[in-house]
Amino acid sequence: MSETPHHHGYIHAKDDYLKRLRRIEGQARGLQRMVEEEQYCIDILTQVSAMTKALQSVALGLLDEHMNHCVVDAARAGGHEADAKLKEASDAIARLVRS
Amino acid sequence: MSETPHHHGYIHAKDDYLKRLRRIEGQARGLQRMVEEEQYCIDILTQVSAMTKALQSVALGLLDEHMNHCVVDAARAGGHEADAKLKEASDAIARLVRS
Amino acid sequence: MSETPHHHGYIHAKDDYLKRLRRIEGQARGLQRMVEEEQYCIDILTQVSAMTKALQSVALGLLDEHMNHCVVDAARAGGHEADAKLKEASDAIARLVRS
Amino acid sequence: MSETPHHHGYIHAKDDYLKRLRRIEGQARGLQRMVEEEQYCIDILTQVSAMTKALQSVALGLLDEHMNHCVVDAARAGGHEADAKLKEASDAIARLVRS
Repeated sequence: MSETPHHHGYIHAKDDYLKRLRRIEGQARGLQRMVEEEQYCIDILTQVSAMTKALQSVALGLLDEHMNHCVVDAARAGGHEADAKLKEASDAIARLVRS
Repeated sequence: MSETPHHHGYIHAKDDYLKRLRRIEGQARGLQRMVEEEQYCIDILTQVSAMTKALQSVALGLLDEHMNHCVVDAARAGGHEADAKLKEASDAIARLVRS
Repeated sequence: MSETPHHHGYIHAKDDYLKRLRRIEGQARGLQRMVEEEQYCIDILTQVSAMTKALQSVALGLLDEHMNHCVVDAARAGGHEADAKLKEASDAIARLVRS
Repeated sequence: MSETPHHHGYIHAKDDYLKRLRRIEGQARGLQRMVEEEQYCIDILTQVSAMTKALQSVALGLLDEHMNHCVVDAARAGGHEADAKLKEASDAIARLVRS
């Protein structure tokens, strides 16, 4: 954790994100059942691809909100803080692109 | 589902996959808590990247087992069945590469 | 083209990018020779992966410079222009993550 | 190189691959011009995404041909050679998925 977990208040569509993450949790449970029952491998892989896409979409949405709030605020404040926030956002983007 | 869910018996390290998928399910729950508490966005994105990598690694392992069993069996049997299995595996690989 | 091609002046390490892109162009020519000579497929795929990584790295560097200049300037100016620039950057990030 | 460069003869649509790779080489040259002229960053990134997708598509096509020839032949031959070819294909797939 790079900050203490106080409320950052930047997530506008919080309920929407929670709903999508609960669905992703359900997909993870579904995958366990499929592996448990040794269902057909290609069907399992199709589920993994769908789950990966759902996760990516959550990540891109959160990154969007982050840039619209934290990064914009930091850019306006300027100085070292702005540079640090931009570097942090760039690193997060690079991790997403490479994962 | 492209086949009825009888046991395909191709998953050798089943317990290992189940353990990894339970951990991924836990990561999905952890993400919900982070969003609920509006933790720092970059920390949430770091978790999403870790979870995506864990999922990819499960997918690559399952694909490996699939190719070593179903695809090899089909290749030996030959004919239309072999072509169909290879096409199916190629499509699954393309979905993984593009997701 | 979303803007007329006047000089935006935001690329600091221009010579470095040009050098990396010339190397990528060379990799594309090398791949043609490998296919022409029908070299071993796995070796060709290894080259494609290396080239994809090199391209990704150029993209992440350029995105970084863009965010440090255009996005920061727009954020300071504020208003509709800031929103539009951020939307545009988000869309470019999504295309990179999904490609 | 994992084999001496004799003709493997597995690439059926050779001219098609060469044409696609020449287009990719042209995209690499186009990117140099865009950077040289310092064109708008987002337009450059859009080109990089298009080029990455084109490369991925070449890779998936070549992998397909490889699996339909080398892997199937090895699977039929069986033994250590089959295992080695499958391991090699799996590693190439993992590199593509992760790049």
